[in-house]
Amino acid sequence: MLCLTTPTDPEWVALAARDLEGVLVDHAHCEMKAASHALSLVARHPTSLKLVKALTALAREELDHFDRVVDFLSSRGIDLGHPPVDEYAAELRLACKALPRDGTPLLVDRLLAAAVIEARSCERFKLLQGVVEKDDALREFYEELFACEARHFRTYRDLALEAALGDDALVTRRLEALAEAEGRIVQGLAKKAVRSTIHG
Amino acid sequence: MLCLTTPTDPEWVALAARDLEGVLVDHAHCEMKAASHALSLVARHPTSLKLVKALTALAREELDHFDRVVDFLSSRGIDLGHPPVDEYAAELRLACKALPRDGTPLLVDRLLAAAVIEARSCERFKLLQGVVEKDDALREFYEELFACEARHFRTYRDLALEAALGDDALVTRRLEALAEAEGRIVQGLAKKAVRSTIHG
Repeated sequence: MLCLTTPTDPEWVALAARDLEGVLVDHAHCEMKAASHALSLVARHPTSLKLVKALTALAREELDHFDRVVDFLSSRGIDLGHPPVDEYAAELRLACKALPRDGTPLLVDRLLAAAVIEARSCERFKLLQGVVEKDDALREFYEELFACEARHFRTYRDLALEAALGDDALVTRRLEALAEAEGRIVQGLAKKAVRSTIHG
Repeated sequence: MLCLTTPTDPEWVALAARDLEGVLVDHAHCEMKAASHALSLVARHPTSLKLVKALTALAREELDHFDRVVDFLSSRGIDLGHPPVDEYAAELRLACKALPRDGTPLLVDRLLAAAVIEARSCERFKLLQGVVEKDDALREFYEELFACEARHFRTYRDLALEAALGDDALVTRRLEALAEAEGRIVQGLAKKAVRSTIHG
């Protein structure tokens, strides 16, 4: 799906079905991290106002999603709690840094890494629709998020293409490398999965 | 004005009038920092979903303001650039930490420090209205922000009161101590002012 090289292990779906509360809590944290990450990209790359505005719009949308997941938590009496250590994001950051520094702007890689994360979210929300089939409110929410994450994937890829001054081959090559690394990360984390997380 | 103990030095207004571009750039960074700070409070204090939702709503509003300041920059051909070192916020954080740890929850002090910052912004936007008297778009924007910052001040103070379990005397005492410290910080920064900043 989208750029992903490795589909989610079916065991993940079974785990999510057994721990929907855990999925909701992790989802809330993911939306918050996505917003904060978009804002950190603004702080690090403030040179293009077009990029700044696009990332700010993304962050505002992620915060809207966060707010709505918090409503689901609230109505179900679930606590949010502190964000857990995010091994998935940490390993993807390392993979990003490990790419050959061949003159490709760091911004391009950072935007593409964000695109890969959106692609994985997109895939997981599709899978989660099946998990919550009988819960209309949550199923519709996941349907909406599935479409949003696909759009965010395209936004990040398009922004990366712009940051790469239109070098489509470069963007394709770096995205493939990051997607392959992400596939390995997801497989590695699946082997030690004890929690239900949107990523990893 | 509001909780402030020290009015802004008239010299600040003269400096702002001479460097409106600098004011706009600093204002953009302030809105972004306000949003990021509200989100960092969510990450550190996720226990009350009511607090989480209030801070998220505040962050979204700050991002809307940031986006609109970026539009002003864009239409005037001004670059955003990297955020400068924020001495004002750093010194206020130190003042917050220096308060007697007499059992007052850290959250109360952090919310009140944010309230003081909003109060200072509010005062500065009132002053800036006079600076941009003939620029209708900017004057109306500052009028709107003046009202918003006053509302944000009240929101932060009310959230602090809730975090202090309704102990009004405690909140008043801590707010006064932080406002006094902020007054000293602003006076100290005014003496070495070389840039036009919303705070400091």
